Amino acid sequence: MIPEGASYFLSWRLAVEANNARGWRTVPSQCLSYVEAYMLGGQYDRDLDLIVDQILSYINEIVPSSDDGAMDAWILDVDDTCISNLVYYRGKRFGCDPFDPAGFKAWALKGGCPAIPAVLGLFKYLVRNGFKVFLITGRDQETLGQATTDNLRNQGFIGYERLIFKTAGFRGQSASAYKSEIRRRVEKEGYRIVGNVGDQWSDLQGECLGRRAFKLPNPMYFVP
Amino acid sequence: MIPEGASYFLSWRLAVEANNARGWRTVPSQCLSYVEAYMLGGQYDRDLDLIVDQILSYINEIVPSSDDGAMDAWILDVDDTCISNLVYYRGKRFGCDPFDPAGFKAWALKGGCPAIPAVLGLFKYLVRNGFKVFLITGRDQETLGQATTDNLRNQGFIGYERLIFKTAGFRGQSASAYKSEIRRRVEKEGYRIVGNVGDQWSDLQGECLGRRAFKLPNPMYFVP
Repeated sequence: MIPEGASYFLSWRLAVEANNARGWRTVPSQCLSYVEAYMLGGQYDRDLDLIVDQILSYINEIVPSSDDGAMDAWILDVDDTCISNLVYYRGKRFGCDPFDPAGFKAWALKGGCPAIPAVLGLFKYLVRNGFKVFLITGRDQETLGQATTDNLRNQGFIGYERLIFKTAGFRGQSASAYKSEIRRRVEKEGYRIVGNVGDQWSDLQGECLGRRAFKLPNPMYFVP
Repeated sequence: MIPEGASYFLSWRLAVEANNARGWRTVPSQCLSYVEAYMLGGQYDRDLDLIVDQILSYINEIVPSSDDGAMDAWILDVDDTCISNLVYYRGKRFGCDPFDPAGFKAWALKGGCPAIPAVLGLFKYLVRNGFKVFLITGRDQETLGQATTDNLRNQGFIGYERLIFKTAGFRGQSASAYKSEIRRRVEKEGYRIVGNVGDQWSDLQGECLGRRAFKLPNPMYFVP
């Protein structure tokens, strides 16, 4: 028998990950101890490991393109896909506190987000196997471009094709609209998007989605 | 600390419900006792209840159409959305055994699938509030049409706009392609699909998806 609070958290998390719950601003406070246990107790890491295993299976199944795959691309999100904000969100009660733009900016400027090990392994595998990796982030180029570029490098994300930030022209656009437009441009250059990985459904919906999308878990916040 | 087997089942189920795991034919046999506990121990029902709550919240947020909503439609899948095959799958080790077309047909012909209570409640709410409900099923019209129609009626699914079966012309098509074409026809008649509910991602992907989709849990089988 699962305790009532744990049971509610399981249902809530399922609704988040299956894209049923949308537009939520904070994690329900009765979930605090459960989201903490999920993020820190090993299940989050095991969930990531299984998804990366599935991505690797998919890669091994796909038939190489006729031009030897030189234009085969993968799209990876940055925050809580490549690098982790868990340390920051720990101080925000794992998302039970509302989003704090100034606090998050200060954290991101430090450039100290650790790599998510499973995704770093995937990234290195993709680069080693000749895929062109595009890192697409909603972080603002002007204010966070340098810190983020440095952060990714110091965590081992080396060898990507391009790192794309949100520029002034996209300000006010939803993540889904902005990322769709970037993917459209990537495809227009002749790349074929064979996979797309992100922790938010807004990374994985919209236009030019590529052949396959993979949703990484994130029960701490929702980006529209 | 979650036991290793339970932890693996959680990761696996998350991958299924987030649409990361695709094309799987059976539930991994090490998950048997966990999928059984999930389906029969209450968590499955609680997960369904929360999703139906979210559907009701969505309905209360949407602005009625200009014509008073007379053409506002909902799409509901049938198997393991409106009515449950859990009793049948219990005899198939909750999906650890491979799909058995003849066995499933014999079960469906009995017309004894019980309603899923949360979805029956949703269905009645939709009908009472003037939505046009379309039940779209991959069941074959010729062989299972009568038994299914009777089964839905004896379980209280009364007042729907239309119940649509797979006909010979769609044979061999994926559920996603078949259901997309049916939704396209529904929209062409002038209906606006405001919501779409199913236990399979193939119910919820493709074309003419409507304004919002809701994925119900189903860790027992995968329909492409």
